[in-house]
Amino acid sequence: MSLVPGDFSRFAINQITTPSLSLVEAVDTYARHGAGGIGVWNQYLEGIAPAAAGRLIRDAGLFVPCLCTTAWVNLADPAARAAAIEENRRRLDAAHDLGAACLVVVPGGLATGEKDIIAARNRVEDALAELLPHARAAGVSLGLEPLHPMFAADRSCLNTFRHCLDLVESMGAGTGIVADVYHCWWDPEFPEGLRAAGAGRILTFHLCDWLVPTRDVYQDRGMVGDGVIDIAFHCRLLNEIAYDGPFEIEIFSKLDWWTRDAAETTRISLERCEPFVAPRAGASVCG
Amino acid sequence: MSLVPGDFSRFAINQITTPSLSLVEAVDTYARHGAGGIGVWNQYLEGIAPAAAGRLIRDAGLFVPCLCTTAWVNLADPAARAAAIEENRRRLDAAHDLGAACLVVVPGGLATGEKDIIAARNRVEDALAELLPHARAAGVSLGLEPLHPMFAADRSCLNTFRHCLDLVESMGAGTGIVADVYHCWWDPEFPEGLRAAGAGRILTFHLCDWLVPTRDVYQDRGMVGDGVIDIAFHCRLLNEIAYDGPFEIEIFSKLDWWTRDAAETTRISLERCEPFVAPRAGASVCG
Repeated sequence: MSLVPGDFSRFAINQITTPSLSLVEAVDTYARHGAGGIGVWNQYLEGIAPAAAGRLIRDAGLFVPCLCTTAWVNLADPAARAAAIEENRRRLDAAHDLGAACLVVVPGGLATGEKDIIAARNRVEDALAELLPHARAAGVSLGLEPLHPMFAADRSCLNTFRHCLDLVESMGAGTGIVADVYHCWWDPEFPEGLRAAGAGRILTFHLCDWLVPTRDVYQDRGMVGDGVIDIAFHCRLLNEIAYDGPFEIEIFSKLDWWTRDAAETTRISLERCEPFVAPRAGASVCG
Repeated sequence: MSLVPGDFSRFAINQITTPSLSLVEAVDTYARHGAGGIGVWNQYLEGIAPAAAGRLIRDAGLFVPCLCTTAWVNLADPAARAAAIEENRRRLDAAHDLGAACLVVVPGGLATGEKDIIAARNRVEDALAELLPHARAAGVSLGLEPLHPMFAADRSCLNTFRHCLDLVESMGAGTGIVADVYHCWWDPEFPEGLRAAGAGRILTFHLCDWLVPTRDVYQDRGMVGDGVIDIAFHCRLLNEIAYDGPFEIEIFSKLDWWTRDAAETTRISLERCEPFVAPRAGASVCG
């Protein structure tokens, strides 16, 4: 008996939503409340082998939509960049051992002192091409996530759904898109982009909300329902394109949710997302 | 003899860069330092007739690239919306009397309680169509300014250059684009958008910089040169498409520049922008 009623078979909670919990605690808390899956962050794998973590998660009946995230590859120093590529190969292996379908790509913004975002994007493209054979061999997709343009300088220079879709189309197998309404809701081309991508290229879909006002550029994201994003519209659209992959709540909120009790955040996450994450009629569940 | 050497014949300072100065003080300060023009904000016209303000500005040898901004039209209440349209007709007349080439369009984001950004954008389009005959009659262009996506909810639902260009192309005469590197630098389609627009559709070009970190979503914009935007790249591109309209520095900075002496901000604005704002060879100056 889970604590929150509803069909959460395709719904995961991303660990960053409750950063105070260890992996073991998060698995227990999410499963007890009824979540179907857990989006894992790399730092919570310290001290536990990814295969053991994967067993722990499966034993609790949860699936793993993604491992977050790549180490930043967009570095000016060649040795640092080579080390980051190698680290990302290890994270692809970890994702495989965990049973995660994808590794979320957050490549960094501009290199230190750099102003040339076109060059930065070209370097990211090169790094992805370098990682792609390893991703394919590991059976883990590189999940390109368009990040909100306000993160272009210092977190990721991949900032539009269209740009990510172009990269995924050119790289082919072993790549896909991690879409997050928080990062894309403002984009007039987002609905059309989702249709152009089709269900098969979307690896996981993150739910979150945009608060008015937003008090912090990085960590003041809102609980689903507390902001201005039309979540229902986007979920209907995903249904129209026959998307039956995972939904995942992911909230960076140092000003609010991260200060609350993690079980309360878990419960409210499930309650708020329940209307949006039901399986498509006739579709198989995740995992 | 102006205080800062250089050819500033196409370069204006936007008043919001030195918000503590009255219009009379701003005109005097900018002219004394050598600026070619002044971007005027509506609130500084209180207590002075626009035609008188225009004479004052011209007598100081300055041009007026724009009047900022429209009253927000994206309102749910029909009476409030009608009043905003009427107010914007008055502002178009004021822009005419001032001698400003355009009125900068900042239409508001979502209406209170609204989540449907597509509907919001449609309403803005309707409002612009309603204002267009008056703009044409006044000889003042509606200057559509793409605002950074982080302002989509609460300041403007016009957030990409491409979206604004589509609107300008469909509305035709009496419309154009106000482009600002701060709002557009992250956009992979911005360079291509500028080329597609061509010089004739760009009414004025704002200079500013993106700080890392950005400490405030709204009012922590950087002085040209202090951030990560490749200003030189964008100015070269404008030169390539034969743009010879105004450049204008516009900085919202409650955390830094607004706390400094306005004459110092004026001087540094001119010094920092001087390398970028020279007239094109063989082109006529602004004004």
